[in-house]
Amino acid sequence: MTESLKVVKIGGNVVDNTEALSRFALDFAKLRGPKLLVHGGGKEATRLSKALGIETVMVDGRRVTDRATLDVVTMVYAGLVNKRIVALLQSLGVDAIGLCGADGNAIFATRRNPLPVDFGYVGDIAPEGVNAALISDLVAVGRVPVFCAITHDGNGTLLNSNADSVAAAVAKGCSRMMPVELIYCFEKDGVLTHVDDPATLIADINREKFAQLRSEGVVNAGMLPKLENAFEAIDYGVKSVTIKNAANLLAERGTVITA
Amino acid sequence: MTESLKVVKIGGNVVDNTEALSRFALDFAKLRGPKLLVHGGGKEATRLSKALGIETVMVDGRRVTDRATLDVVTMVYAGLVNKRIVALLQSLGVDAIGLCGADGNAIFATRRNPLPVDFGYVGDIAPEGVNAALISDLVAVGRVPVFCAITHDGNGTLLNSNADSVAAAVAKGCSRMMPVELIYCFEKDGVLTHVDDPATLIADINREKFAQLRSEGVVNAGMLPKLENAFEAIDYGVKSVTIKNAANLLAERGTVITA
Repeated sequence: MTESLKVVKIGGNVVDNTEALSRFALDFAKLRGPKLLVHGGGKEATRLSKALGIETVMVDGRRVTDRATLDVVTMVYAGLVNKRIVALLQSLGVDAIGLCGADGNAIFATRRNPLPVDFGYVGDIAPEGVNAALISDLVAVGRVPVFCAITHDGNGTLLNSNADSVAAAVAKGCSRMMPVELIYCFEKDGVLTHVDDPATLIADINREKFAQLRSEGVVNAGMLPKLENAFEAIDYGVKSVTIKNAANLLAERGTVITA
Repeated sequence: MTESLKVVKIGGNVVDNTEALSRFALDFAKLRGPKLLVHGGGKEATRLSKALGIETVMVDGRRVTDRATLDVVTMVYAGLVNKRIVALLQSLGVDAIGLCGADGNAIFATRRNPLPVDFGYVGDIAPEGVNAALISDLVAVGRVPVFCAITHDGNGTLLNSNADSVAAAVAKGCSRMMPVELIYCFEKDGVLTHVDDPATLIADINREKFAQLRSEGVVNAGMLPKLENAFEAIDYGVKSVTIKNAANLLAERGTVITA
């Protein structure tokens, strides 16, 4: 296969908004060539936890996943959200097939070291843990995998992973078998020098430009780790990483990161 | 493919019992040849509905599926139960891949006529609604589909179906492409002339014997529709239908129904 596989990631802001999700799905349906979707969770898991009286514990901005919370995120991410998106895409003629990491051993993860902080059933993923052969088999016949961020440890335990990390690992893992473009959709138009001014969008960044932007201090702190992860994916073999607004999936507008 | 595809169905009694499920999974892992699993829901959905204050409404022994209940069964059946079983089977070396009917358009269903009773988001399945090509693609390379009883209408709406009906439709649908054996696991050893006496097991039933058993009144009323459905599957092209105890999956013991 010489055509690039497009790995598209959407976050909770799209998942939680029926109208935004419908609009995004219409655009995603029009995206040509082999593609797959990785979706975040959204607020439904927090809502369900609250309704069930399960306390949400956050450490350093990350959710601690105890057994009860693992059940909740499995129900919401792998069940409700994943199947809603799959049914929606199928209605638009996209042959979507929803997967968590356990399905077909798609994404193997390692439970995070409980020291210094025990995050519970949280799984970290290496690109080698991605079953690129399964993904390749599916996309080769026009199927469109839809991943939630639930993974497994291979010993029968499901794990809660970060959706951005799932997207990066899937893109890296698949890049060993085919050319891959990774597209992160979020709520801004891309990398902006002034975070509230869309006119300051930076259309493309390579390593040289990144070094320059960093030394000038024009990229805001929250964006730095995203860019570092993007370059890590590119070093691994991913062709390009694009950061753009979910509403602009089919538009040129966004920040394209290349080597 | 000349080897039979084994379509195995387990009910809530196995799903709800961790020990019984582990034992069953070990046996299922040992089952040779192409195979797939269809699982029922179990009591977890009723438990979650209750915890969320959603009233369970039953009409003629069937659950009415309003929007809130559809969300609950999607979370529990397609999320929690399906992914638990998939992760368990993967840990035993079975390349399980969990599917609801929307995934890969595996099972298309029709929302039941709201007259005379509106059961809400309940879907009825025709064998033609089963994507036998998808199932064939998966089992041909050693993958093992694991189905929950959530289906879809092709217009973006998920539907709640009956797991016995899913198993029958999948078996019938696949029988157009390959030989199929349908195996229903339940809490009895098979068809018994005295329902509480395992010694009265009937090892095999064909149409002639069925007519005789029925005229003699030795088959109890609850078993009659199961047998009628079994013969319907056989008329459609399924090679055999076996009714047995989930604990006896690998044993000969059970009732085998053939033409």
